[in-house]
Amino acid sequence: MNINGQHRRTIWEKEKDPATIMIIDQRQLPHELLFEEMRNVEDATRAIREMHVRGAPLIGATAAYGLYLAALEAATLRGQQASAHLSAAADKLRATRPTAVDLFHAIDRVLDATSRSTDPDVRIEAALEEARAVTEESVDACYRIGEHGLSLIEAVAKSKPGPVNILTHCNAGWMACVDYGTATAPVYLAHDRGIEMHVWVDETRPRNQGARITAFELLEHGVPHTVITDNAGGHLMQNGMVDLVFVGSDRTTRTGDVANKIGTYLKALAAHDNDVHFYVALPSSSIDWSISGGVGNIPIEERDAKEVQYVQGMVDGELKEVLLTPPGSPAANYGFDVTPARLVSGLITDRGICAASEEGLLELYPERG
Amino acid sequence: MNINGQHRRTIWEKEKDPATIMIIDQRQLPHELLFEEMRNVEDATRAIREMHVRGAPLIGATAAYGLYLAALEAATLRGQQASAHLSAAADKLRATRPTAVDLFHAIDRVLDATSRSTDPDVRIEAALEEARAVTEESVDACYRIGEHGLSLIEAVAKSKPGPVNILTHCNAGWMACVDYGTATAPVYLAHDRGIEMHVWVDETRPRNQGARITAFELLEHGVPHTVITDNAGGHLMQNGMVDLVFVGSDRTTRTGDVANKIGTYLKALAAHDNDVHFYVALPSSSIDWSISGGVGNIPIEERDAKEVQYVQGMVDGELKEVLLTPPGSPAANYGFDVTPARLVSGLITDRGICAASEEGLLELYPERG
Repeated sequence: MNINGQHRRTIWEKEKDPATIMIIDQRQLPHELLFEEMRNVEDATRAIREMHVRGAPLIGATAAYGLYLAALEAATLRGQQASAHLSAAADKLRATRPTAVDLFHAIDRVLDATSRSTDPDVRIEAALEEARAVTEESVDACYRIGEHGLSLIEAVAKSKPGPVNILTHCNAGWMACVDYGTATAPVYLAHDRGIEMHVWVDETRPRNQGARITAFELLEHGVPHTVITDNAGGHLMQNGMVDLVFVGSDRTTRTGDVANKIGTYLKALAAHDNDVHFYVALPSSSIDWSISGGVGNIPIEERDAKEVQYVQGMVDGELKEVLLTPPGSPAANYGFDVTPARLVSGLITDRGICAASEEGLLELYPERG
Repeated sequence: MNINGQHRRTIWEKEKDPATIMIIDQRQLPHELLFEEMRNVEDATRAIREMHVRGAPLIGATAAYGLYLAALEAATLRGQQASAHLSAAADKLRATRPTAVDLFHAIDRVLDATSRSTDPDVRIEAALEEARAVTEESVDACYRIGEHGLSLIEAVAKSKPGPVNILTHCNAGWMACVDYGTATAPVYLAHDRGIEMHVWVDETRPRNQGARITAFELLEHGVPHTVITDNAGGHLMQNGMVDLVFVGSDRTTRTGDVANKIGTYLKALAAHDNDVHFYVALPSSSIDWSISGGVGNIPIEERDAKEVQYVQGMVDGELKEVLLTPPGSPAANYGFDVTPARLVSGLITDRGICAASEEGLLELYPERG
């Protein structure tokens, strides 16, 4: 999507420099927009581990290009040594964020592509092609989610005057993917086609991905939006100020339960209590066909309490972490919660929209039956 | 309750100095504990207006003592001039926080007490007596709320091993009152009687009254607690980690709908969805007998967007406000929401516990029938 009027992706090949991959270092957003060069697998590993990039699809694309950079490095090595270098690079990349499924999938694909030849040039070309394929497939999946979700927005736009009000939680935007995003894809498509849009952006404590990244995305692309605290959504829905809720998903079970950023469940409850439709946008790759009921079966990551006790912001021209709580008070930091399928109006996937149930999912994915 | 092992109130008469009233300047909490002297009505007016003190019961007590300080000032004036001084002081105090009902009530009481004599000494004595009465009645109401709510905690403690886990939102603690608090009163009484307690403290964005003040209160009084983001409560309730929810109320309608800090409604929904009892603690004075349904009838204050865009915290030994959002992104800041009576398990008042309904309330307040 656009930044400062120019179309961007979160990862791209540097012009006239085939040995450099560019990313956006997202850590200083929205206060600073930094482009970063990745010239070797160490750069890619650091970018993922230290969260210069985040979001499962973008992590996958970064790892894929990281292995391409490793293939370039391996060109000066012979036979066994070259393979060993690629294998070690894959191990390093795998160790960065050990729970991201897309990461392992992308690494396996590029490794497999490079294994078909021992000729360095062929191997490099194969790695580049596969990294491009991983990236384009992610863009394509997001675009298709956007097209399917667009129909829901169009229906609202036809039914009432004024803007269509979407509420979203966390960042399931293009900054978490390569382009379009998941929950934001229908919003961008609708906006670009001239439908009047307005997005309520949950700030999404503790890491404020909404206030920092979703707001930045929407602002730069020109989509009207308003940042709210995570506490405000219930009041807005009670008062008819939300037409649709669109959120992303970290993992969706085969029965349609949705694990997503902590606080998603509270918004689903409020939507249900006020007859507001609550949709979850997700790429097919994030469906976990091995799990049925979500609560108790999906492990919920408990993160560092410091993310609750401190918050990062801009003061006097510098990014600083400020302490919010009494130094002696403990904090707990659960990263995700599970929204039961009964609260979900539908799942927006790259294959179409379905009911949040095993029957609904199997209509779109009959091969899983 | 205790601070650093010593029993404190939020407002008190300075020892051996009848012309000075002491308060805690709460603006720097939890990072700095500042005691402040009020020596004239200007000091009291500033303390309320600039939120050195907050919370309806404490605002009432501060205004009452402020008028006592005005009566001291008026002692050197004669007849008409003295009455005019008191009347002007009352006007200034009324103008500080124009929506707080307790404020007007306290001012009227002290003004009425001073109107019964023109003798300066009698007037001063009457003002002091009435200010003390306002203050002691607030302490007494909170204590009785505590005793009634204690029965709920005792029932849980008898039914299971380990601590009784209470979740609370915002600060309905002793720092908002004179002592005990409303939602916290049962917790303090239970803790002081040896029941093992643990409190989940919602940070309560945007102003973080939970993370700053409720956490400070509990820490200083020695009650085990954990600060969480406002997003976390649903997950905790889904996983059996909350026994009771206790919150305060800014205004309760005659049918039991509850206006309280923004986000309270979301916790009530989660409690209802998980069969967790959700109780609202409130002094009788905060019941609005003139309103029935709350949603749409209770005006919801929209506050400065900057409270969402910025947050205050400690960095490098200084309190700073840091910017969280893109400078170009607007924010909205709704101060309260309404929790429908159907989600409230009961109201804990100074007269006892009742159902959140007109019938329930009229059993405790038959004179309103």
